[in-house]
Amino acid sequence: MPPKPVTAALLVIGDEILSGRTKDKNIGFVADFLTERGIDLREVRVVPDVIAEIVAALNALRQRYSYVFTTGGIGPTHDDVTAEAVGAAFGLPVVENPQAIALLLQRIKPEDLNAARRRMAHMPAGAELVENSVSKAPGFKIGNVIVMAGVPAIMQAMLAAVAPSLETGPPTLAKSIAVGNIPEGAYAADLAAIAAQHPALSIGSYPSVVNNQFANEIVVRGKDPDAIAAAVAAIDKAIAALRATGKDKYTLR
Amino acid sequence: MPPKPVTAALLVIGDEILSGRTKDKNIGFVADFLTERGIDLREVRVVPDVIAEIVAALNALRQRYSYVFTTGGIGPTHDDVTAEAVGAAFGLPVVENPQAIALLLQRIKPEDLNAARRRMAHMPAGAELVENSVSKAPGFKIGNVIVMAGVPAIMQAMLAAVAPSLETGPPTLAKSIAVGNIPEGAYAADLAAIAAQHPALSIGSYPSVVNNQFANEIVVRGKDPDAIAAAVAAIDKAIAALRATGKDKYTLR
Repeated sequence: MPPKPVTAALLVIGDEILSGRTKDKNIGFVADFLTERGIDLREVRVVPDVIAEIVAALNALRQRYSYVFTTGGIGPTHDDVTAEAVGAAFGLPVVENPQAIALLLQRIKPEDLNAARRRMAHMPAGAELVENSVSKAPGFKIGNVIVMAGVPAIMQAMLAAVAPSLETGPPTLAKSIAVGNIPEGAYAADLAAIAAQHPALSIGSYPSVVNNQFANEIVVRGKDPDAIAAAVAAIDKAIAALRATGKDKYTLR
Repeated sequence: MPPKPVTAALLVIGDEILSGRTKDKNIGFVADFLTERGIDLREVRVVPDVIAEIVAALNALRQRYSYVFTTGGIGPTHDDVTAEAVGAAFGLPVVENPQAIALLLQRIKPEDLNAARRRMAHMPAGAELVENSVSKAPGFKIGNVIVMAGVPAIMQAMLAAVAPSLETGPPTLAKSIAVGNIPEGAYAADLAAIAAQHPALSIGSYPSVVNNQFANEIVVRGKDPDAIAAAVAAIDKAIAALRATGKDKYTLR
């Protein structure tokens, strides 16, 4: 029996991503970070700063995956509603966390710690803090949900802080085969046959366009290095055979 | 009565986004494109190349929003399963579309149009084609779902092709107020009061970190230019008052 995979979803919270005002930089970073640690990111959702939407997404995701990471909505302004939404999702009261207040006081003078700033210490009862080495105001973890800031530098610091406490699974290994301008349609049948022989692997073909030409890449992903090596060898052989027969050319009309 | 908003969701399909191998460039582009046209992007999901996952997400989203746009999974290889999944979501058979075959034959010689390449013409019965001016293989529209390629250059061409046929709503207008290094906690109470006076507007405060200093921005969004102007004037006044009292300084300990 292979070990049980550890899975995750990412919930990106913010009107500004949906309006296009802010271009998300967290999805790709979180994907790389989790993949490297053997946590399989299975789903991402982006929702607005609306409590009912956050609650619905969170409750769908937290029951399904080992972890749910959220980004955004934990600052001091009225549009920062993530803590309140997480409390509602768990049916927990949102309370002022004294440890979080102490952290805020490391940066903010007592006379400047107004009601808005105190909101940054509001979190569901029982939450554990996630350290913010950039600007002190912490994220938090409650159940399997890890709540982080949206600012990429702060999100990255929080992800690093929480990482040691996360359960991890067998890492997903990946091998890439650059096939350049060989069209996908030329190797699709071979690749489908090889994929069918390796059901535990994920084999993908990724076209991209560089200088108006396809620059294709085949990627083999999985947990078992021997199976990956066998699939890569089979793909290399199939591509070499295509080249030998001249069927690797993309003969456009 | 204000006109009914036209809404949309985006479904990004692909293992490669979730593994981190490919950094998505479509979410931000689609967000800008739709916002400019008065179509409100309300939700984004990223799911793997797994038919059951695509079907579940599509059926949740297409019942809720005016349009669902999908990106990815419409090429000729075995991991391209979007057309099959869309057919399953609608309960429609997936058939070879003769118009799509004709388009493929504009680029591919008849003797090269193998079974894998013909898959690019497979789509749910009754689908309308979405033109691909980059590499011919079309996207399609069925019901309120618009299926596009994942390669950004091709996705963008398809979005431009389908745009004239889309219903549009009143555009969302946005005004940004750069407040620089004034901390959010200094203006949060004023901003909350102004937001409460303008419930039809979305007022957001967006911190970012530049050279280890906050570079904050307040954005006012909505459909009514007069309401936006009134809110912006109130925010400008509040920020000027903060500056006048010296409470705009971020006095760290």
